[in-house]
Amino acid sequence: MNEKEIVAEEAVKLVEDGMVLGIGSGTTIAVFLEKLGERIKKEGLEVYGVPSSYQSHFLALKAGIRIVDLFEYSELDLCIDGADQIDKNLNCIKGGGGALTREKIVSQASKRFIVIAEERKFVDKLSMPVPIEVIPFAYGHVVRKLQEMGGICKLREGSGKLGPVISDNGNFIIDCNFDEIENPKELELSLNAIAGIVENGIFCNVDEVILGSKDGIKILKR
Amino acid sequence: MNEKEIVAEEAVKLVEDGMVLGIGSGTTIAVFLEKLGERIKKEGLEVYGVPSSYQSHFLALKAGIRIVDLFEYSELDLCIDGADQIDKNLNCIKGGGGALTREKIVSQASKRFIVIAEERKFVDKLSMPVPIEVIPFAYGHVVRKLQEMGGICKLREGSGKLGPVISDNGNFIIDCNFDEIENPKELELSLNAIAGIVENGIFCNVDEVILGSKDGIKILKR
Amino acid sequence: MNEKEIVAEEAVKLVEDGMVLGIGSGTTIAVFLEKLGERIKKEGLEVYGVPSSYQSHFLALKAGIRIVDLFEYSELDLCIDGADQIDKNLNCIKGGGGALTREKIVSQASKRFIVIAEERKFVDKLSMPVPIEVIPFAYGHVVRKLQEMGGICKLREGSGKLGPVISDNGNFIIDCNFDEIENPKELELSLNAIAGIVENGIFCNVDEVILGSKDGIKILKR
Amino acid sequence: MNEKEIVAEEAVKLVEDGMVLGIGSGTTIAVFLEKLGERIKKEGLEVYGVPSSYQSHFLALKAGIRIVDLFEYSELDLCIDGADQIDKNLNCIKGGGGALTREKIVSQASKRFIVIAEERKFVDKLSMPVPIEVIPFAYGHVVRKLQEMGGICKLREGSGKLGPVISDNGNFIIDCNFDEIENPKELELSLNAIAGIVENGIFCNVDEVILGSKDGIKILKR
Repeated sequence: MNEKEIVAEEAVKLVEDGMVLGIGSGTTIAVFLEKLGERIKKEGLEVYGVPSSYQSHFLALKAGIRIVDLFEYSELDLCIDGADQIDKNLNCIKGGGGALTREKIVSQASKRFIVIAEERKFVDKLSMPVPIEVIPFAYGHVVRKLQEMGGICKLREGSGKLGPVISDNGNFIIDCNFDEIENPKELELSLNAIAGIVENGIFCNVDEVILGSKDGIKILKR
Repeated sequence: MNEKEIVAEEAVKLVEDGMVLGIGSGTTIAVFLEKLGERIKKEGLEVYGVPSSYQSHFLALKAGIRIVDLFEYSELDLCIDGADQIDKNLNCIKGGGGALTREKIVSQASKRFIVIAEERKFVDKLSMPVPIEVIPFAYGHVVRKLQEMGGICKLREGSGKLGPVISDNGNFIIDCNFDEIENPKELELSLNAIAGIVENGIFCNVDEVILGSKDGIKILKR
Repeated sequence: MNEKEIVAEEAVKLVEDGMVLGIGSGTTIAVFLEKLGERIKKEGLEVYGVPSSYQSHFLALKAGIRIVDLFEYSELDLCIDGADQIDKNLNCIKGGGGALTREKIVSQASKRFIVIAEERKFVDKLSMPVPIEVIPFAYGHVVRKLQEMGGICKLREGSGKLGPVISDNGNFIIDCNFDEIENPKELELSLNAIAGIVENGIFCNVDEVILGSKDGIKILKR
Repeated sequence: MNEKEIVAEEAVKLVEDGMVLGIGSGTTIAVFLEKLGERIKKEGLEVYGVPSSYQSHFLALKAGIRIVDLFEYSELDLCIDGADQIDKNLNCIKGGGGALTREKIVSQASKRFIVIAEERKFVDKLSMPVPIEVIPFAYGHVVRKLQEMGGICKLREGSGKLGPVISDNGNFIIDCNFDEIENPKELELSLNAIAGIVENGIFCNVDEVILGSKDGIKILKR
């Protein structure tokens, strides 16, 4: 088993029959959903889930999870998601896959939020560019405000279409480099105070991190 | 002239040739745009504008304003908008017309933000329900969080379509009653920290308020 | 029982345990869902449904229907919807509630599509304005093309927000008056050939109509 | 000069002072806009344009084109766009860049629609997969209908985000292989008759094609 498989397997153990999950997005979550699907099949579990992206929606259906929504369940039992960078206070940067807004929604909606990741994503201080979801109408304004805060902005582009990447919500993603982030919570709030920013990739609501390395797993609790 | 006309006329005087305006929304702004259109025609002014709604987009075109965007102008010279309630510190509640997100964007993008309103909208303390724009996906979660904060939520419905009113950005509007709001700035930030809330109708960035009554105008500066 | 209740009750009889329904929108569908909810509760049925609007999504949840989607079920067993006008060939005009696009999607996705309505909606020839869902970007162009086709356009406005009504998909609704429609199928296709029109309210895929009057029900089959 | 530059230069000659352009998208259009920008600067032209994507919006601004919209101009003077494949009747397949819906809107809105392309895109019969823009809600249904028509569907994915590519309008792109297309016009209309398809990449409204090869240009007229 590689590191993603190790942490995914650990997370799958936490799922109980009848639970309503917040389902993150990304490659680690893809492994988690595959393994959860095997358990659902073998044990005949009934598991409900609110996916945070089309990617995890498709994979959750394949795994036999019953897709539900926040209209029906305003509170979820458990949210499992990956992360791009995690610091020692369990603050994370997420959003490399562009699904940060719905990821933060399902994480905040859950009683318990657990991040699973390879140990190499654990850092002393958060320092990678922060993905920020922005309403296209506000783009120039938001870039200017981010620059005033010292950020270096890059509008995310990708393959498959011309021009900027569009999120599942129809918005742009700016990757904004603030270098080392001294106070993640403060930055998270400052970013959300800028009109036109829908959400940002700093997550300070993680309850528990499961790190995987070739030596096994490590569990960090808040 | 009625009160809306009095304040609109005062605001029109502030517009200079070549200016790029942030254009609010609403019935007072409709009067403002009509009067501005007369000035543009008579004086041959060139005025540029970024409208905050389809409503004001249509009216601005009719007035002879050249529609531009925040891609081209990341900073605007002057924003004129109405308000639903204004307190003595110039904090406002806006969003009765459902355009609060783009209204806040153009107001924050402007060097100077002036609110024009009838004097009866001036209150001691903000107390009307706060319009909040919410991503439909997050609805149940957001309502639960707002209730935990003591708010009483009402999903806005209207005529012309079944079910909830949809904003120009494709989202829901919740009108959330917090009764008297002791600290508007704090509430504004707390609301934006809830994932799924795109923007809320508390505005604490007003530079100047022009109030109109039958006795004339009153100017309040921060 | 009034006429809506009469046809709703008839439609509820057609639902079988385990069925996946396409769920229309509107006031008649609201009655249908309420009555279906009673049957689900009493008989312990398991019924799945794909709603065509936020309105019917909320009501379907309340009725105990399990919300599913077209990702999971690419074909539905039965679609029940209302209509605004029905001609003798079972062609309909729908979309008074602004949900026409998703209504047409679930109706086309269903093996059997049944319309329920009060008898007074039955007409010799379709003649009311056709609701048309339009991407805002294309608005001016679409209006011009519709006018060239002889249509008289009205951009739908409503209460609850300023400016045009926005559909659940984020688009405008134009109500376009073509007077008596000689060939509904031809008009339906011509409208969809105009770029910027997402969908239109002419439905020529109805299998069966259940009409209700004070004298009871009438069933019309294609 | 390479072939893209040759055709772009030819197209630039067609632009006149005061014209309102429909602006396509893609790499050839990027060259066109750069060259048009040079002409605008040198000759002091005033050129207005409605861009069909964020990509060409950004480039048009850089070129000094005044961005306008279809609210203001319901008819455009001239549309210039590229294409992915062109047959001898001037029918095209477009949409490799995912901008097909707005591209078709601006092309239909224009008095004259000219496609510029490298000669190697000219084919006997259209045969490449047709890009189709689909409302995510309708995805499974649309795939089933396309398969019934003999199409082989591929949901477009790309880099920069997880899961499917999202268009500038917030929708999916399906690339649907119909092999050789015998009757493009018929296929175009059949596709638009499927509810959930917003627009497809078959264009049968081209007035003129300018093909570039190392031997110079060739002009094909309808």
